[in-house]
Amino acid sequence: MASFGDLGERQTVKMIRELLQKEDSPDGMDDDAALIPIGNEILVISTDNVTFERHRPEGMSPERFGWMSAAVNFSDIASMGARPVGFLSALSVPEDMDVTEIAEIMSGIDQCAEFCGTHVIGGDTKPGHGSVSGTAIGVMEGRTPMRRNGARIGDVIAVTGPLGGPAAGYHSMKESLGLEDAEFCLTTPIPRVNEGIALSASGIVSSCIDLSDGLSTALNTLCESSKKGCIIEWDLLPKHEDTVTVGEMLDIPLESLVMDFGGEYELLFTFDRNDTDALNELDIQFHIIGIITDGNDVVLRRDEKYRKVTDGTY
Amino acid sequence: MASFGDLGERQTVKMIRELLQKEDSPDGMDDDAALIPIGNEILVISTDNVTFERHRPEGMSPERFGWMSAAVNFSDIASMGARPVGFLSALSVPEDMDVTEIAEIMSGIDQCAEFCGTHVIGGDTKPGHGSVSGTAIGVMEGRTPMRRNGARIGDVIAVTGPLGGPAAGYHSMKESLGLEDAEFCLTTPIPRVNEGIALSASGIVSSCIDLSDGLSTALNTLCESSKKGCIIEWDLLPKHEDTVTVGEMLDIPLESLVMDFGGEYELLFTFDRNDTDALNELDIQFHIIGIITDGNDVVLRRDEKYRKVTDGTY
Repeated sequence: MASFGDLGERQTVKMIRELLQKEDSPDGMDDDAALIPIGNEILVISTDNVTFERHRPEGMSPERFGWMSAAVNFSDIASMGARPVGFLSALSVPEDMDVTEIAEIMSGIDQCAEFCGTHVIGGDTKPGHGSVSGTAIGVMEGRTPMRRNGARIGDVIAVTGPLGGPAAGYHSMKESLGLEDAEFCLTTPIPRVNEGIALSASGIVSSCIDLSDGLSTALNTLCESSKKGCIIEWDLLPKHEDTVTVGEMLDIPLESLVMDFGGEYELLFTFDRNDTDALNELDIQFHIIGIITDGNDVVLRRDEKYRKVTDGTY
Repeated sequence: MASFGDLGERQTVKMIRELLQKEDSPDGMDDDAALIPIGNEILVISTDNVTFERHRPEGMSPERFGWMSAAVNFSDIASMGARPVGFLSALSVPEDMDVTEIAEIMSGIDQCAEFCGTHVIGGDTKPGHGSVSGTAIGVMEGRTPMRRNGARIGDVIAVTGPLGGPAAGYHSMKESLGLEDAEFCLTTPIPRVNEGIALSASGIVSSCIDLSDGLSTALNTLCESSKKGCIIEWDLLPKHEDTVTVGEMLDIPLESLVMDFGGEYELLFTFDRNDTDALNELDIQFHIIGIITDGNDVVLRRDEKYRKVTDGTY
C-alpha cells in the first residue's frame, strides 16, 4: 500500500472523507469547517494542527506562532460567514521547552482570539514534539453558511485583498531582507471575520473559501467542489507590493509567489456579476480576478496566453 | 526559567489558566470541558491531543488507538452531562505511515463517535510526528452541567464502575499475560455518556470528573477545585478482577494499579448521602468509595491506617 507521503495530503483527506461518508452524514464535510444545527442556531467548527517544525519559519517568535495557529482556524470559520464564540487549543510541547515560551504561544493565541472578538475557553497541554491543535467555534446568527460548492457558470471570482504578502514575508525573514510589511503579513495573518460576516449577510455570495493553502489550491478546491472551471486574469490579481521586490531580488517567479504559497488569509468568493453594485455597498475591500466557466480546469490568462493551474502547494 | 519538563503538566496548565484569566472570562476554564451558551442551549466542548509515541501502548492496533483518542474527549464532555453532537479530529501523520493505518485510525474514531451517538463531522490531516487532536462537541439539553468545584462537606463520593482494568490491561499487553478483559478495558475505553446524562438530569450530583488521569489525580483535582478534602475507604474501592492477578504476577502494589494509572473512563461524582435512594432509582451502576471532608487533603484509609494521596500520574 501507499504511504502517506506517497499519496499526499489531499488524496488522503479524500480517502478519509469517503471512508466516513454515510447516508446520514452531516452537511459540510467538504468545507473549511463543519456545521452543526443547535436549536435555531448553526454552529460552525474548525480544527487544524500546526507544528513547530513545519509551520514556524525561522525567526518567528513563539507569540507570532501562537497567533498564526489560532488564525488558521478563525479563517476557516470566517470563510463560511460565522461569528467566533470561542477557541480551544491543545498544545503538544517538548519537555525541554522553556515555560515562558509556552506562555508566549498562549498569549499569541489569546491575542488573536480577542482580535476575532472571542476568548480562549479551554484546552490541553501535553508533552510531545511541538504542535498546536486549535479549534475555533462560531455561530451563523441566522445567516446562511457560505460553501465551497455553490459557484455557478458566469459568476465572477473575487478576493478580499492583495496576494503574495506572506510568501514575500517568508523569503524576507529567511534572507534577512527586512521587508517589514510582508513579514507582518506572514506572522500576523488577519482572519477575515468581518468580511465573512458581511459577505454571508449579503446573500449574494454563491461560494467562498479561504486562501490558507494558497490561491492555486483554493481555486482548484473550489472548482472541484462546485464541479466547474475558471479563468483567472493575471493582470487583475492584486499583488502585495513586496512580492515584486522579493521576486526580483531572489529571482523567484512572481506567479509562484502570488499563487502557490500558503499562509494567505484573504477570502476567495464568487457572485453573480449583476450583484456587483450591491457588493460595492458592503463596507469591504474586494478585487475581481476572474470568472467561473463550465470546464473542469483552473486556467490562468497572462499576456494572451492560457496556462492550466494545478494545486500549487501540494 | 523552568522547562516544561521541570514544571510539569499540571503546573503549566495552571500557569496558562492564570495567564488567560480575565474579568469577563467565560465559565468552565477549570473543568474537563468548556461551556458556551448558544441561545437556550449550552454547548460543551473538549479538545485533547494524544500521541502515537506516548499514548499508544505496544501492541495496540491503529483502530483501537483511534477509538481511544476519541474516547478521551467524549469522556470529558460526558463528565459534565452533555449529549455528544459531533466530533472533529486533526491528525498529524508521519510521511512513511501506510495510508491503510490512517484509515484504520479514522475507522476507530468513527466507531467510538457512533457508539457515543454521533459522527465525525470534520477535521484535518497533516504531516507530523504522529498524533490525534480530537474535539468533542455536546449539548446540555436543559440539564445543568456538572462541575468539578461543587463538592460539599459530608457528600459521599462514588464511581460508576470497577477501577484498575486499564492498568492491568497495559501490563498484560506488555508482558503478554493474555488477560483479555483487562486489555479490552485499555484499548476500548467506554466513555460514560449515558451515565453522565442520567447523573446531570437527576439534579442530585454536586460535582463530577472523569478518571482519565487516574483516581489519585481525579480526587486531587476535584478536591482542589472544590476547596475540600476527602477520605477514601480502600475496602470500598471496586477493583477490576484482573488487577489482583497482575499485581501478584508482576509484584506491583495493588494500590498503584487501582489508583495511579490513567486511561480509566469511569466517572467520579459526589452527592448528598440523603439522595442515595434517588440515585439508586437511576438506571446506572455506582459504588460509594468515600466522603468529602473539610480538610485540603485526599486521604486513603486502609487497614485502620491513613495515608495522604498525592497526584499519582504526575
